[in-house]
Amino acid sequence: MAVGWFYLSVMVLCSLGSMCILSTIYWMRYWQGGFAWDGTMLMFNWHPVLMVTGMVVVYSAASLVYRLPQSWVGPKLPWKFGHAAMHLLAFILTVLGLHAVFDFHNQRKIPNLYSLHSWLGITTVFLFACQWSLGFAVFLLPWASVQLRSLLKPIHVFFGASILSLAIASVISGINEKLFFSLKNGTNSYSSLPSEAVFANCSGMLVVVFGLLVLYILLASSWKRPELGMQAERQALLHGGE
Amino acid sequence: MAVGWFYLSVMVLCSLGSMCILSTIYWMRYWQGGFAWDGTMLMFNWHPVLMVTGMVVVYSAASLVYRLPQSWVGPKLPWKFGHAAMHLLAFILTVLGLHAVFDFHNQRKIPNLYSLHSWLGITTVFLFACQWSLGFAVFLLPWASVQLRSLLKPIHVFFGASILSLAIASVISGINEKLFFSLKNGTNSYSSLPSEAVFANCSGMLVVVFGLLVLYILLASSWKRPELGMQAERQALLHGGE
Repeated sequence: MAVGWFYLSVMVLCSLGSMCILSTIYWMRYWQGGFAWDGTMLMFNWHPVLMVTGMVVVYSAASLVYRLPQSWVGPKLPWKFGHAAMHLLAFILTVLGLHAVFDFHNQRKIPNLYSLHSWLGITTVFLFACQWSLGFAVFLLPWASVQLRSLLKPIHVFFGASILSLAIASVISGINEKLFFSLKNGTNSYSSLPSEAVFANCSGMLVVVFGLLVLYILLASSWKRPELGMQAERQALLHGGE
Repeated sequence: MAVGWFYLSVMVLCSLGSMCILSTIYWMRYWQGGFAWDGTMLMFNWHPVLMVTGMVVVYSAASLVYRLPQSWVGPKLPWKFGHAAMHLLAFILTVLGLHAVFDFHNQRKIPNLYSLHSWLGITTVFLFACQWSLGFAVFLLPWASVQLRSLLKPIHVFFGASILSLAIASVISGINEKLFFSLKNGTNSYSSLPSEAVFANCSGMLVVVFGLLVLYILLASSWKRPELGMQAERQALLHGGE
């Protein structure tokens, strides 16, 4: 892969990821009244921001660690720690995002976990927790055999991409649900497409574009850590070669 | 891959796909009044059934044609025709599914294409149309060079899997939206999880499980058409070997 393309892709990815987070914050601040941590609707507003940040953007950054050519050379262990630590950060943000919505529901006596959005979302977080724990136990702790690691690696990679896909589906259904809750009045109904609806729909589509780009990079063979025999050739990427 | 595993997976896939379609039909017949083609709510009821059938189940079956070991040997052209014809069937069902919802909206003076569900859904169908046309022009018509086909193949494969993922996200947000529209009364509200909500949520999760299994088979290397040098060995699968 050409160096120019590589750095352009990284730049596009960073810009799109930042835009996903900033547009969700802007939506919650400008149209939904901002943030608080007090069990009110202002506490709920942390939910979309933390889920997009944790389950989509930080999760994607953590997943892409091994796609950096810097990680292809030298010892792998520090990159493994980086991968696990960033995913742990994504998981902490996700749990805070869940806490925001559960606390809001509990204080307002709204039932938890009834919508398909919530069923899919909680399944995604559960799969993420299993994926992180199993990944930590098998790939980071020293006890697992090479055979076990080889056996689990393709499953780990597949579930990594699947969990991101499920997170995106959860975000889409969540934004859709939130807009149906918020935009109900005749002059300001969702179906009349007021500015909030256009902005939030665009934010959702931005998350989809970002997710597809991440999945493309995760799955494309030209971005993967090369096999041992090919490493010398690929190292040229680090030193400005094509 | 062992023959036993292969046929078990095909059986599980066929059962899950049929269950996705049948559960959507059952939901629409038992709780939503059944079907008609007259611009009423009964016409809308075709929308979820046709989208799940076309964009998820038939689309998946069409995508998996090259994963059948029977397609690994002999001339590839009949399998290409099968792949394109099945995708065309999926597209026709999808267009009928869109017609059902647009006609219902137009007769009831409900605006079209305002929700994030509809934005994502229409984008998915547009990408599907581009993918089919480009695939037909490049891979089925004889004019394209081998270089062009090699260049486009990984992009075709990636968008094939992506379109299925986006279709699943559209289905999830669509089921969620429909339940918020249908279940509004206090005793029968979505949040009280009446039997319809539980059934439709389970149907949505079934679509997710089906989609993940299809994506696993599409992406796993052991299911892919082997390179020429490996074909003789893999043909054993057709004749009962391991």
